[in-house]
Amino acid sequence: MGEPAGGVMFDRVGVVGLGLIGTSFALALRGRGLAGQVVGVDPNEGALAAARARGAVDAAAADYAVLAGADLVIVATPPGAVVEAVVQAARAARREAVLADVASVKAPIVRAVEAALPEGARFVGGHPMAGTERRGGAAADAALLAGRPFLITPTARSDTAAVDAVRDLVRALGMRPLLVDPDVHDAIVAQVSHVPYLLAVAAVNAVGEEAALSLGGPAFDGLRRVAASPVELWVEICAQNRVAILRSLAWVREELDRIQQALGEESAGQLTELLTAAHRRAVVGG
Amino acid sequence: MGEPAGGVMFDRVGVVGLGLIGTSFALALRGRGLAGQVVGVDPNEGALAAARARGAVDAAAADYAVLAGADLVIVATPPGAVVEAVVQAARAARREAVLADVASVKAPIVRAVEAALPEGARFVGGHPMAGTERRGGAAADAALLAGRPFLITPTARSDTAAVDAVRDLVRALGMRPLLVDPDVHDAIVAQVSHVPYLLAVAAVNAVGEEAALSLGGPAFDGLRRVAASPVELWVEICAQNRVAILRSLAWVREELDRIQQALGEESAGQLTELLTAAHRRAVVGG
Repeated sequence: MGEPAGGVMFDRVGVVGLGLIGTSFALALRGRGLAGQVVGVDPNEGALAAARARGAVDAAAADYAVLAGADLVIVATPPGAVVEAVVQAARAARREAVLADVASVKAPIVRAVEAALPEGARFVGGHPMAGTERRGGAAADAALLAGRPFLITPTARSDTAAVDAVRDLVRALGMRPLLVDPDVHDAIVAQVSHVPYLLAVAAVNAVGEEAALSLGGPAFDGLRRVAASPVELWVEICAQNRVAILRSLAWVREELDRIQQALGEESAGQLTELLTAAHRRAVVGG
Repeated sequence: MGEPAGGVMFDRVGVVGLGLIGTSFALALRGRGLAGQVVGVDPNEGALAAARARGAVDAAAADYAVLAGADLVIVATPPGAVVEAVVQAARAARREAVLADVASVKAPIVRAVEAALPEGARFVGGHPMAGTERRGGAAADAALLAGRPFLITPTARSDTAAVDAVRDLVRALGMRPLLVDPDVHDAIVAQVSHVPYLLAVAAVNAVGEEAALSLGGPAFDGLRRVAASPVELWVEICAQNRVAILRSLAWVREELDRIQQALGEESAGQLTELLTAAHRRAVVGG
Protein backbone atom coordinates (compact mmCIF):
# COMPACT_ATOMS: atom_id res chain seq x y z
CA MET A 1 0.00 0.00 0.00
CA GLY A 2 2.85 2.41 0.81
CA GLU A 3 0.81 4.44 3.32
CA PRO A 4 1.75 4.73 6.96
CA ALA A 5 -0.87 3.85 9.52
CA GLY A 6 -4.14 2.86 7.88
CA GLY A 7 -7.40 3.22 9.69
CA VAL A 8 -10.16 5.80 9.40
CA MET A 9 -8.97 9.09 7.86
CA PHE A 10 -12.36 10.83 7.54
CA ASP A 11 -15.48 10.35 9.66
CA ARG A 12 -17.98 10.80 6.88
CA VAL A 13 -17.08 10.99 3.21
CA GLY A 14 -19.59 12.18 0.65
CA VAL A 15 -19.36 11.18 -3.00
CA VAL A 16 -21.34 13.32 -5.44
CA GLY A 17 -21.92 11.55 -8.73
CA LEU A 18 -22.21 7.78 -8.40
CA GLY A 19 -20.89 6.85 -11.83
CA LEU A 20 -17.90 4.68 -12.65
CA ILE A 21 -15.29 6.82 -10.87
CA GLY A 22 -17.38 8.07 -7.94
CA THR A 23 -18.59 4.59 -7.06
CA SER A 24 -15.07 3.18 -7.48
CA PHE A 25 -13.82 5.72 -4.91
CA ALA A 26 -16.69 4.84 -2.58
CA LEU A 27 -15.83 1.13 -2.87
CA ALA A 28 -12.13 1.79 -2.34
CA LEU A 29 -12.77 3.99 0.71
CA ARG A 30 -14.97 1.35 2.31
CA GLY A 31 -12.80 -1.55 1.22
CA ARG A 32 -9.72 0.00 2.84
CA GLY A 33 -11.59 1.20 5.92
CA LEU A 34 -10.53 4.81 5.35
CA ALA A 35 -13.94 6.38 6.07
CA GLY A 36 -16.24 5.99 9.07
CA GLN A 37 -19.17 6.32 6.69
CA VAL A 38 -19.57 6.84 2.96
CA VAL A 39 -22.65 8.66 1.68
CA GLY A 40 -23.58 9.32 -1.93
CA VAL A 41 -25.48 11.92 -3.93
CA ASP A 42 -26.81 11.40 -7.43
CA PRO A 43 -29.86 12.83 -9.20
CA ASN A 44 -30.44 9.49 -10.89
CA GLU A 45 -32.44 6.86 -9.00
CA GLY A 46 -30.77 4.03 -10.93
CA ALA A 47 -27.32 5.26 -9.95
CA LEU A 48 -28.37 5.43 -6.29
CA ALA A 49 -29.78 1.91 -6.44
CA ALA A 50 -26.63 0.57 -8.13
CA ALA A 51 -24.37 2.13 -5.49
CA ARG A 52 -26.51 0.67 -2.71
CA ALA A 53 -26.59 -2.74 -4.41
CA ARG A 54 -22.79 -2.71 -4.75
CA GLY A 55 -22.46 -1.92 -1.04
CA ALA A 56 -20.57 1.24 -1.98
CA VAL A 57 -22.45 3.59 0.36
CA ASP A 58 -23.94 3.64 3.85
CA ALA A 59 -26.62 6.02 2.59
CA ALA A 60 -27.37 7.69 -0.73
CA ALA A 61 -29.92 10.21 -1.95
CA ALA A 62 -30.69 12.71 -4.69
CA ASP A 63 -30.64 15.49 -2.08
CA TYR A 64 -27.35 17.06 -0.97
CA ALA A 65 -28.74 17.05 2.59
CA VAL A 66 -27.33 13.53 2.93
CA LEU A 67 -23.88 15.19 3.02
CA ALA A 68 -24.64 16.76 6.43
CA GLY A 69 -21.68 16.14 8.73
CA ALA A 70 -19.31 15.11 5.91
CA ASP A 71 -15.67 16.12 6.47
CA LEU A 72 -14.65 15.17 2.91
CA VAL A 73 -16.71 15.39 -0.25
CA ILE A 74 -15.46 13.96 -3.55
CA VAL A 75 -17.28 15.45 -6.53
CA ALA A 76 -17.26 12.95 -9.41
CA THR A 77 -19.90 14.42 -11.71
CA PRO A 78 -19.35 15.03 -15.44
CA PRO A 79 -16.95 17.99 -15.91
CA GLY A 80 -19.71 20.45 -16.84
CA ALA A 81 -21.55 19.84 -13.55
CA VAL A 82 -18.58 20.07 -11.18
CA VAL A 83 -18.79 23.76 -10.20
CA GLU A 84 -22.45 23.63 -9.22
CA ALA A 85 -21.95 20.32 -7.39
CA VAL A 86 -19.00 21.65 -5.34
CA VAL A 87 -20.99 24.76 -4.38
CA GLN A 88 -23.95 22.62 -3.27
CA ALA A 89 -21.66 20.22 -1.41
CA ALA A 90 -19.95 23.10 0.41
CA ARG A 91 -23.34 24.25 1.70
CA ALA A 92 -24.39 20.78 2.86
CA ALA A 93 -21.16 19.43 4.38
CA ARG A 94 -19.27 20.58 7.48
CA ARG A 95 -17.92 24.10 7.24
CA GLU A 96 -14.30 22.85 7.42
CA ALA A 97 -14.89 19.91 5.07
CA VAL A 98 -12.32 19.19 2.37
CA LEU A 99 -13.94 19.41 -1.06
CA ALA A 100 -12.24 17.59 -3.93
CA ASP A 101 -13.19 16.99 -7.52
CA VAL A 102 -11.90 14.37 -9.94
CA ALA A 103 -12.68 15.89 -13.35
CA SER A 104 -10.38 15.29 -16.33
CA VAL A 105 -9.88 19.02 -16.99
CA LYS A 106 -8.58 21.26 -14.25
CA ALA A 107 -7.71 24.91 -15.02
CA PRO A 108 -11.18 26.16 -16.03
CA ILE A 109 -12.91 24.08 -13.37
CA VAL A 110 -10.54 25.02 -10.55
CA ARG A 111 -10.79 28.70 -11.47
CA ALA A 112 -14.59 28.60 -11.61
CA VAL A 113 -14.91 26.67 -8.37
CA GLU A 114 -12.58 29.04 -6.53
CA ALA A 115 -14.57 32.01 -7.82
CA ALA A 116 -17.86 30.43 -6.77
CA LEU A 117 -16.93 29.20 -3.29
CA PRO A 118 -16.98 31.45 -0.22
CA GLU A 119 -13.67 32.56 1.32
CA GLY A 120 -12.22 29.83 3.54
CA ALA A 121 -13.75 26.90 1.68
CA ARG A 122 -11.20 24.11 1.37
CA PHE A 123 -11.30 22.99 -2.25
CA VAL A 124 -8.65 20.78 -3.87
CA GLY A 125 -8.74 19.93 -7.58
CA GLY A 126 -7.75 16.42 -8.53
CA HIS A 127 -7.71 13.95 -11.40
CA PRO A 128 -7.28 10.18 -11.10
CA MET A 129 -5.73 8.76 -14.31
CA ALA A 130 -8.02 5.75 -14.21
CA GLY A 131 -11.06 4.43 -15.98
CA THR A 132 -12.41 2.00 -18.52
CA GLU A 133 -14.61 2.35 -21.57
CA ARG A 134 -17.53 1.17 -19.44
CA ARG A 135 -19.58 3.57 -17.42
CA GLY A 136 -21.91 3.73 -14.46
CA GLY A 137 -21.67 2.43 -10.94
CA ALA A 138 -22.34 -1.15 -12.02
CA ALA A 139 -18.90 -1.19 -13.69
CA ALA A 140 -17.20 0.47 -10.70
CA ASP A 141 -14.23 -1.32 -9.17
CA ALA A 142 -11.75 -0.26 -6.50
CA ALA A 143 -9.08 -2.08 -8.53
CA LEU A 144 -9.43 0.58 -11.28
CA LEU A 145 -7.73 3.04 -8.93
CA ALA A 146 -4.93 0.96 -7.44
CA GLY A 147 -1.50 1.94 -8.71
CA ARG A 148 -2.81 4.70 -10.98
CA PRO A 149 -1.50 8.30 -10.94
CA PHE A 150 -3.69 10.90 -9.17
CA LEU A 151 -2.81 14.45 -10.21
CA ILE A 152 -3.57 17.08 -7.55
CA THR A 153 -3.76 20.68 -8.78
CA PRO A 154 -3.40 23.19 -5.93
CA THR A 155 -3.37 26.95 -6.53
CA ALA A 156 -2.18 29.96 -4.53
CA ARG A 157 -5.61 29.98 -2.90
CA SER A 158 -5.53 26.34 -1.80
CA ASP A 159 -5.52 25.40 1.89
CA THR A 160 -2.24 23.58 2.47
CA ALA A 161 -3.65 21.25 5.09
CA ALA A 162 -6.51 20.30 2.74
CA VAL A 163 -4.03 19.55 -0.06
CA ASP A 164 -1.99 17.40 2.32
CA ALA A 165 -5.12 15.58 3.45
CA VAL A 166 -6.06 14.75 -0.14
CA ARG A 167 -2.52 13.60 -0.87
CA ASP A 168 -2.48 11.34 2.18
CA LEU A 169 -5.85 9.89 1.23
CA VAL A 170 -4.71 9.27 -2.34
CA ARG A 171 -1.68 7.38 -1.02
CA ALA A 172 -3.84 5.41 1.39
CA LEU A 173 -6.02 4.44 -1.59
CA GLY A 174 -2.93 2.91 -3.21
CA MET A 175 -2.71 5.60 -5.89
CA ARG A 176 0.30 7.73 -6.89
CA PRO A 177 -0.28 11.39 -5.95
CA LEU A 178 1.51 14.11 -7.91
CA LEU A 179 1.08 17.87 -7.42
CA VAL A 180 0.96 19.98 -10.59
CA ASP A 181 -0.27 23.39 -11.61
CA PRO A 182 -3.78 23.23 -13.13
CA ASP A 183 -2.63 24.58 -16.51
CA VAL A 184 0.30 22.16 -16.60
CA HIS A 185 -2.15 19.40 -15.78
CA ASP A 186 -4.34 20.32 -18.71
CA ALA A 187 -1.36 20.40 -21.08
CA ILE A 188 -0.18 17.00 -19.85
CA VAL A 189 -3.53 15.24 -20.05
CA ALA A 190 -4.15 16.64 -23.51
CA GLN A 191 -1.07 14.67 -24.53
CA VAL A 192 -1.46 11.49 -22.50
CA SER A 193 -5.23 11.12 -22.36
CA HIS A 194 -7.34 13.41 -24.54
CA VAL A 195 -5.38 13.21 -27.79
CA PRO A 196 -4.86 9.43 -27.44
CA TYR A 197 -8.65 9.14 -27.28
CA LEU A 198 -9.04 11.30 -30.40
CA LEU A 199 -6.41 9.21 -32.21
CA ALA A 200 -8.45 6.13 -31.38
CA VAL A 201 -11.55 7.82 -32.78
CA ALA A 202 -9.70 8.74 -35.97
CA ALA A 203 -8.21 5.25 -36.37
CA VAL A 204 -11.57 3.55 -35.91
CA ASN A 205 -13.41 5.97 -38.22
CA ALA A 206 -10.69 5.64 -40.88
CA VAL A 207 -11.20 1.89 -41.32
CA GLY A 208 -12.80 1.46 -44.73
CA GLU A 209 -14.70 -1.77 -44.28
CA GLU A 210 -16.61 -2.32 -41.03
CA ALA A 211 -15.86 -6.05 -41.36
CA ALA A 212 -12.20 -5.23 -40.77
CA LEU A 213 -12.96 -3.80 -37.32
CA SER A 214 -12.92 -7.24 -35.73
CA LEU A 215 -9.72 -8.32 -37.49
CA GLY A 216 -7.30 -6.11 -35.63
CA GLY A 217 -4.38 -7.11 -33.51
CA PRO A 218 -3.98 -6.23 -29.84
CA ALA A 219 -3.00 -2.63 -30.73
CA PHE A 220 -6.19 -1.95 -32.63
CA ASP A 221 -8.30 -3.72 -30.02
CA GLY A 222 -6.86 -1.30 -27.48
CA LEU A 223 -7.81 1.68 -29.66
CA ARG A 224 -11.26 0.23 -30.18
CA ARG A 225 -11.82 -0.09 -26.45
CA VAL A 226 -10.79 3.54 -26.00
CA ALA A 227 -13.07 4.70 -28.82
CA ALA A 228 -15.96 2.97 -27.04
CA SER A 229 -15.72 5.43 -24.12
CA PRO A 230 -18.80 7.54 -23.31
CA VAL A 231 -19.26 10.17 -26.02
CA GLU A 232 -21.02 12.84 -23.94
CA LEU A 233 -18.23 12.87 -21.38
CA TRP A 234 -15.61 13.30 -24.10
CA VAL A 235 -17.51 16.10 -25.81
CA GLU A 236 -17.42 17.98 -22.49
CA ILE A 237 -13.73 17.26 -21.97
CA CYS A 238 -12.89 18.40 -25.51
CA ALA A 239 -14.82 21.63 -25.01
CA GLN A 240 -13.11 22.37 -21.71
CA ASN A 241 -9.55 21.50 -22.77
CA ARG A 242 -9.92 22.61 -26.37
CA VAL A 243 -6.84 24.79 -26.68
CA ALA A 244 -4.40 22.32 -25.13
CA ILE A 245 -5.90 19.49 -27.20
CA LEU A 246 -5.52 21.43 -30.46
CA ARG A 247 -1.91 22.26 -29.62
CA SER A 248 -1.18 18.65 -28.72
CA LEU A 249 -2.90 17.35 -31.88
CA ALA A 250 -0.65 19.64 -33.92
CA TRP A 251 2.41 18.05 -32.29
CA VAL A 252 1.15 14.57 -33.11
CA ARG A 253 0.64 15.65 -36.71
CA GLU A 254 4.21 16.87 -36.86
CA GLU A 255 5.31 13.42 -35.72
CA LEU A 256 3.05 11.84 -38.35
CA ASP A 257 4.66 14.15 -40.94
CA ARG A 258 8.07 12.78 -39.98
CA ILE A 259 6.86 9.19 -40.22
CA GLN A 260 5.20 9.80 -43.59
CA GLN A 261 8.30 11.50 -44.91
CA ALA A 262 10.49 8.56 -43.86
CA LEU A 263 8.04 6.14 -45.48
CA GLY A 264 7.65 8.27 -48.59
CA GLU A 265 11.41 8.51 -49.08
CA GLU A 266 11.86 4.83 -48.19
CA SER A 267 14.39 5.93 -45.62
CA ALA A 268 14.83 2.96 -43.32
CA GLY A 269 17.39 4.95 -41.35
CA GLN A 270 15.05 7.87 -40.70
CA LEU A 271 12.18 5.52 -39.84
CA THR A 272 14.36 3.47 -37.50
CA GLU A 273 15.31 6.67 -35.70
CA LEU A 274 11.67 7.64 -35.12
CA LEU A 275 10.56 4.17 -34.03
CA THR A 276 13.59 3.82 -31.77
CA ALA A 277 12.87 7.15 -30.08
CA ALA A 278 9.33 6.00 -29.30
CA HIS A 279 10.55 2.59 -28.16
CA ARG A 280 13.04 4.14 -25.76
CA ARG A 281 10.42 6.52 -24.33
CA ALA A 282 7.83 3.75 -24.09
CA VAL A 283 10.19 1.55 -22.15
CA VAL A 284 11.56 4.34 -19.92
CA GLY A 285 8.05 5.55 -19.21
CA GLY A 286 7.00 2.08 -18.13
CA MET B 1 -12.46 -25.06 -28.58
CA GLY B 2 -15.01 -25.15 -31.39
CA GLU B 3 -13.16 -27.80 -33.41
CA PRO B 4 -14.64 -31.19 -34.15
CA ALA B 5 -12.55 -34.20 -33.25
CA GLY B 6 -9.22 -33.15 -31.77
CA GLY B 7 -6.27 -35.48 -31.89
CA VAL B 8 -3.14 -35.45 -34.00
CA MET B 9 -3.57 -33.53 -37.28
CA PHE B 10 0.05 -33.66 -38.47
CA ASP B 11 2.72 -36.27 -37.73
CA ARG B 12 5.64 -33.91 -37.57
CA VAL B 13 5.35 -30.14 -37.56
CA GLY B 14 8.36 -27.93 -38.15
CA VAL B 15 8.52 -24.37 -36.88
CA VAL B 16 11.15 -22.15 -38.49
CA GLY B 17 11.93 -19.09 -36.36
CA LEU B 18 11.58 -19.72 -32.64
CA GLY B 19 10.65 -16.20 -31.60
CA LEU B 20 7.50 -15.04 -29.85
CA ILE B 21 5.03 -16.25 -32.48
CA GLY B 22 6.83 -19.39 -33.66
CA THR B 23 7.35 -20.66 -30.14
CA SER B 24 3.74 -19.78 -29.22
CA PHE B 25 2.55 -21.94 -32.13
CA ALA B 26 4.86 -24.76 -31.06
CA LEU B 27 3.49 -24.57 -27.50
CA ALA B 28 -0.11 -24.46 -28.72
CA LEU B 29 0.40 -27.44 -31.08
CA ARG B 30 1.90 -29.52 -28.28
CA GLY B 31 -0.52 -28.27 -25.65
CA ARG B 32 -3.50 -29.28 -27.77
CA GLY B 33 -1.96 -32.54 -28.96
CA LEU B 34 -2.34 -31.58 -32.62
CA ALA B 35 1.12 -32.73 -33.73
CA GLY B 36 2.86 -36.07 -33.28
CA GLN B 37 6.12 -34.19 -32.96
CA VAL B 38 7.16 -30.54 -33.10
CA VAL B 39 10.65 -29.67 -34.33
CA GLY B 40 12.19 -26.22 -34.54
CA VAL B 41 14.76 -24.38 -36.64
CA ASP B 42 16.49 -21.17 -35.61
CA PRO B 43 19.97 -19.84 -36.44
CA ASN B 44 20.25 -18.46 -32.90
CA GLU B 45 21.52 -20.81 -30.19
CA GLY B 46 19.73 -18.83 -27.47
CA ALA B 47 16.40 -19.17 -29.27
CA LEU B 48 16.91 -22.93 -29.63
CA ALA B 49 17.76 -23.22 -25.93
CA ALA B 50 14.72 -21.15 -24.91
CA ALA B 51 12.38 -23.30 -27.02
CA ARG B 52 13.81 -26.46 -25.51
CA ALA B 53 13.61 -25.03 -22.00
CA ARG B 54 9.96 -24.08 -22.54
CA GLY B 55 9.21 -27.63 -23.69
CA ALA B 56 7.98 -26.19 -26.99
CA VAL B 57 9.86 -28.66 -29.24
CA ASP B 58 10.80 -32.33 -29.36
CA ALA B 59 13.96 -31.35 -31.22
CA ALA B 60 15.45 -28.10 -32.48
CA ALA B 61 18.52 -27.16 -34.48
CA ALA B 62 20.07 -24.42 -36.59
CA ASP B 63 20.07 -26.79 -39.57
CA TYR B 64 16.95 -27.29 -41.69
CA ALA B 65 17.78 -31.02 -41.80
CA VAL B 66 15.80 -31.34 -38.56
CA LEU B 67 12.67 -30.79 -40.70
CA ALA B 68 13.14 -34.16 -42.44
CA GLY B 69 9.83 -35.97 -42.47
CA ALA B 70 7.76 -32.90 -41.56
CA ASP B 71 4.28 -32.79 -43.12
CA LEU B 72 3.67 -29.18 -42.02
CA VAL B 73 6.19 -26.37 -41.66
CA ILE B 74 5.23 -23.02 -40.14
CA VAL B 75 7.68 -20.29 -41.08
CA ALA B 76 7.72 -17.63 -38.37
CA THR B 77 10.87 -15.68 -39.23
CA PRO B 78 10.96 -11.88 -39.59
CA PRO B 79 9.16 -10.83 -42.81
CA GLY B 80 12.37 -10.20 -44.75
CA ALA B 81 13.60 -13.77 -44.17
CA VAL B 82 10.38 -15.64 -45.05
CA VAL B 83 11.03 -16.38 -48.72
CA GLU B 84 14.42 -17.95 -48.17
CA ALA B 85 13.13 -19.89 -45.14
CA VAL B 86 10.17 -21.34 -47.06
CA VAL B 87 12.46 -22.42 -49.89
CA GLN B 88 14.83 -24.12 -47.46
CA ALA B 89 11.95 -25.73 -45.60
CA ALA B 90 10.46 -27.08 -48.85
CA ARG B 91 13.77 -28.82 -49.60
CA ALA B 92 14.07 -30.36 -46.14
CA ALA B 93 10.49 -31.43 -45.41
CA ARG B 94 8.36 -34.09 -47.09
CA ARG B 95 7.62 -33.41 -50.72
CA GLU B 96 3.86 -33.10 -50.04
CA ALA B 97 4.32 -31.05 -46.85
CA VAL B 98 2.10 -28.02 -46.28
CA LEU B 99 4.24 -24.88 -45.96
CA ALA B 100 2.72 -21.92 -44.16
CA ASP B 101 4.09 -18.56 -43.11
CA VAL B 102 2.78 -16.13 -40.51
CA ALA B 103 4.29 -12.80 -41.59
CA SER B 104 2.40 -9.52 -41.09
CA VAL B 105 2.59 -8.57 -44.77
CA LYS B 106 1.27 -10.91 -47.40
CA ALA B 107 1.10 -9.80 -51.05
CA PRO B 108 4.84 -9.25 -51.71
CA ILE B 109 5.81 -12.29 -49.63
CA VAL B 110 3.23 -14.63 -51.15
CA ARG B 111 4.18 -13.52 -54.66
CA ALA B 112 7.89 -14.00 -54.01
CA VAL B 113 7.42 -17.39 -52.33
CA GLU B 114 5.26 -18.66 -55.18
CA ALA B 115 7.84 -17.52 -57.70
CA ALA B 116 10.65 -19.18 -55.76
CA LEU B 117 9.03 -22.56 -55.00
CA PRO B 118 8.97 -25.42 -57.48
CA GLU B 119 5.70 -26.35 -59.19
CA GLY B 120 3.51 -28.49 -56.90
CA ALA B 121 4.83 -27.08 -53.62
CA ARG B 122 1.95 -26.55 -51.21
CA PHE B 123 2.42 -23.06 -49.77
CA VAL B 124 -0.30 -21.17 -47.82
CA GLY B 125 0.23 -17.60 -46.64
CA GLY B 126 -1.17 -16.72 -43.25
CA HIS B 127 -1.16 -14.05 -40.57
CA PRO B 128 -2.22 -14.52 -36.95
CA MET B 129 -3.48 -11.20 -35.48
CA ALA B 130 -1.73 -11.85 -32.20
CA GLY B 131 1.28 -10.68 -30.30
CA THR B 132 2.59 -8.53 -27.50
CA GLU B 133 5.26 -5.88 -27.27
CA ARG B 134 7.58 -8.50 -25.83
CA ARG B 135 9.68 -10.67 -28.08
CA GLY B 136 11.52 -13.95 -28.17
CA GLY B 137 10.59 -17.48 -27.24
CA ALA B 138 10.84 -16.75 -23.52
CA ALA B 139 7.72 -14.56 -23.82
CA ALA B 140 5.87 -17.12 -25.97
CA ASP B 141 2.47 -18.27 -24.76
CA ALA B 142 -0.19 -20.44 -26.39
CA ALA B 143 -2.78 -18.11 -24.83
CA LEU B 144 -1.61 -15.29 -27.14
CA LEU B 145 -3.23 -17.17 -30.03
CA ALA B 146 -6.52 -18.34 -28.52
CA GLY B 147 -9.52 -16.46 -29.86
CA ARG B 148 -7.46 -14.27 -32.21
CA PRO B 149 -8.18 -13.87 -35.95
CA PHE B 150 -5.90 -15.78 -38.35
CA LEU B 151 -6.03 -14.40 -41.88
CA ILE B 152 -5.28 -16.97 -44.60
CA THR B 153 -4.34 -15.58 -48.02
CA PRO B 154 -4.73 -18.17 -50.79
CA THR B 155 -4.07 -17.32 -54.44
CA ALA B 156 -5.07 -18.91 -57.75
CA ARG B 157 -1.93 -21.05 -57.43
CA SER B 158 -2.78 -22.36 -53.95
CA ASP B 159 -3.48 -26.05 -53.35
CA THR B 160 -7.06 -26.21 -52.07
CA ALA B 161 -6.44 -29.16 -49.80
CA ALA B 162 -3.45 -27.37 -48.24
CA VAL B 163 -5.57 -24.27 -47.61
CA ASP B 164 -8.25 -26.44 -45.99
CA ALA B 165 -5.65 -28.16 -43.85
CA VAL B 166 -4.33 -24.81 -42.58
CA ARG B 167 -7.86 -23.60 -41.90
CA ASP B 168 -8.70 -26.76 -39.95
CA LEU B 169 -5.50 -26.45 -37.94
CA VAL B 170 -6.18 -22.79 -37.17
CA ARG B 171 -9.64 -23.72 -35.87
CA ALA B 172 -8.20 -26.57 -33.83
CA LEU B 173 -5.78 -24.04 -32.29
CA GLY B 174 -8.79 -22.05 -31.10
CA MET B 175 -8.18 -19.19 -33.56
CA ARG B 176 -10.63 -17.60 -36.01
CA PRO B 177 -9.63 -18.39 -39.61
CA LEU B 178 -10.65 -15.99 -42.38
CA LEU B 179 -9.72 -16.31 -46.06
CA VAL B 180 -8.79 -13.07 -47.84
CA ASP B 181 -6.91 -12.04 -50.94
CA PRO B 182 -3.26 -11.12 -50.14
CA ASP B 183 -3.69 -7.52 -51.33
CA VAL B 184 -6.91 -7.12 -49.38
CA HIS B 185 -5.07 -8.51 -46.37
CA ASP B 186 -2.35 -5.91 -46.70
CA ALA B 187 -4.89 -3.09 -47.01
CA ILE B 188 -6.77 -4.32 -43.92
CA VAL B 189 -3.75 -4.79 -41.69
CA ALA B 190 -2.40 -1.38 -42.68
CA GLN B 191 -5.58 0.00 -41.08
CA VAL B 192 -6.00 -2.28 -38.08
CA SER B 193 -2.40 -3.03 -37.18
CA HIS B 194 0.35 -1.09 -38.94
CA VAL B 195 -1.11 2.43 -38.75
CA PRO B 196 -2.27 1.92 -35.14
CA TYR B 197 1.36 1.14 -34.31
CA LEU B 198 2.55 4.28 -36.10
CA LEU B 199 -0.10 6.36 -34.27
CA ALA B 200 1.28 5.01 -31.01
CA VAL B 201 4.79 6.01 -32.10
CA ALA B 202 3.59 9.52 -33.01
CA ALA B 203 1.65 9.92 -29.75
CA VAL B 204 4.59 8.83 -27.62
CA ASN B 205 7.11 10.96 -29.52
CA ALA B 206 4.79 14.00 -29.37
CA VAL B 207 4.75 14.10 -25.56
CA GLY B 208 6.73 17.19 -24.61
CA GLU B 209 8.02 16.23 -21.17
CA GLU B 210 9.32 12.72 -20.64
CA ALA B 211 8.06 12.92 -17.05
CA ALA B 212 4.52 12.96 -18.44
CA LEU B 213 4.99 9.54 -20.05
CA SER B 214 4.16 7.75 -16.80
CA LEU B 215 1.11 9.94 -16.06
CA GLY B 216 -1.17 8.61 -18.75
CA GLY B 217 -4.50 6.93 -18.38
CA PRO B 218 -5.27 3.42 -19.64
CA ALA B 219 -5.52 4.68 -23.24
CA PHE B 220 -2.01 6.10 -23.26
CA ASP B 221 -0.61 3.09 -21.43
CA GLY B 222 -2.01 0.97 -24.26
CA LEU B 223 -0.30 3.14 -26.88
CA ARG B 224 2.92 3.03 -24.90
CA ARG B 225 2.87 -0.77 -24.81
CA VAL B 226 2.38 -0.82 -28.59
CA ALA B 227 5.19 1.69 -29.15
CA ALA B 228 7.47 -0.64 -27.17
CA SER B 229 7.19 -3.33 -29.88
CA PRO B 230 10.42 -4.49 -31.58
CA VAL B 231 11.69 -1.73 -33.88
CA GLU B 232 13.54 -3.88 -36.43
CA LEU B 233 10.42 -5.98 -37.08
CA TRP B 234 8.35 -2.84 -37.66
CA VAL B 235 10.90 -1.29 -40.00
CA GLU B 236 10.61 -4.42 -42.15
CA ILE B 237 6.81 -4.39 -42.01
CA CYS B 238 6.70 -0.70 -42.97
CA ALA B 239 9.01 -1.30 -45.91
CA GLN B 240 6.97 -4.23 -47.17
CA ASN B 241 3.53 -2.67 -46.76
CA ARG B 242 4.58 0.88 -47.47
CA VAL B 243 1.97 1.82 -50.06
CA ALA B 244 -1.02 0.53 -48.09
CA ILE B 245 0.30 2.16 -44.91
CA LEU B 246 0.72 5.55 -46.60
CA ARG B 247 -2.80 5.35 -48.01
CA SER B 248 -4.23 4.36 -44.65
CA LEU B 249 -2.29 7.10 -42.84
CA ALA B 250 -3.82 9.61 -45.24
CA TRP B 251 -7.29 8.40 -44.27
CA VAL B 252 -6.49 8.78 -40.58
CA ARG B 253 -5.28 12.32 -41.26
CA GLU B 254 -8.57 13.11 -42.98
CA GLU B 255 -10.35 11.94 -39.83
CA LEU B 256 -8.02 14.09 -37.72
CA ASP B 257 -8.85 17.05 -40.01
CA ARG B 258 -12.53 16.53 -39.23
CA ILE B 259 -11.88 16.35 -35.50
CA GLN B 260 -9.67 19.45 -35.57
CA GLN B 261 -12.25 21.34 -37.58
CA ALA B 262 -15.00 20.48 -35.12
CA LEU B 263 -12.75 21.53 -32.21
CA GLY B 264 -11.60 24.68 -33.99
CA GLU B 265 -15.15 25.76 -34.74
CA GLU B 266 -16.29 24.73 -31.25
CA SER B 267 -18.98 22.66 -32.93
CA ALA B 268 -20.21 20.26 -30.27
CA GLY B 269 -22.68 18.86 -32.78
CA GLN B 270 -20.03 18.03 -35.36
CA LEU B 271 -17.72 16.58 -32.71
CA THR B 272 -20.52 14.50 -31.21
CA GLU B 273 -21.19 13.07 -34.66
CA LEU B 274 -17.57 11.99 -35.13
CA LEU B 275 -17.20 10.52 -31.65
CA THR B 276 -20.55 8.75 -31.94
CA ALA B 277 -19.57 7.17 -35.26
CA ALA B 278 -16.41 5.77 -33.68
CA HIS B 279 -18.31 4.63 -30.59
CA ARG B 280 -20.84 2.75 -32.70
CA ARG B 281 -18.12 1.08 -34.77
CA ALA B 282 -16.07 0.26 -31.69
CA VAL B 283 -19.01 -1.44 -30.03
CA VAL B 284 -20.24 -3.22 -33.17
CA GLY B 285 -16.74 -4.40 -33.97
CA GLY B 286 -16.42 -5.90 -30.50
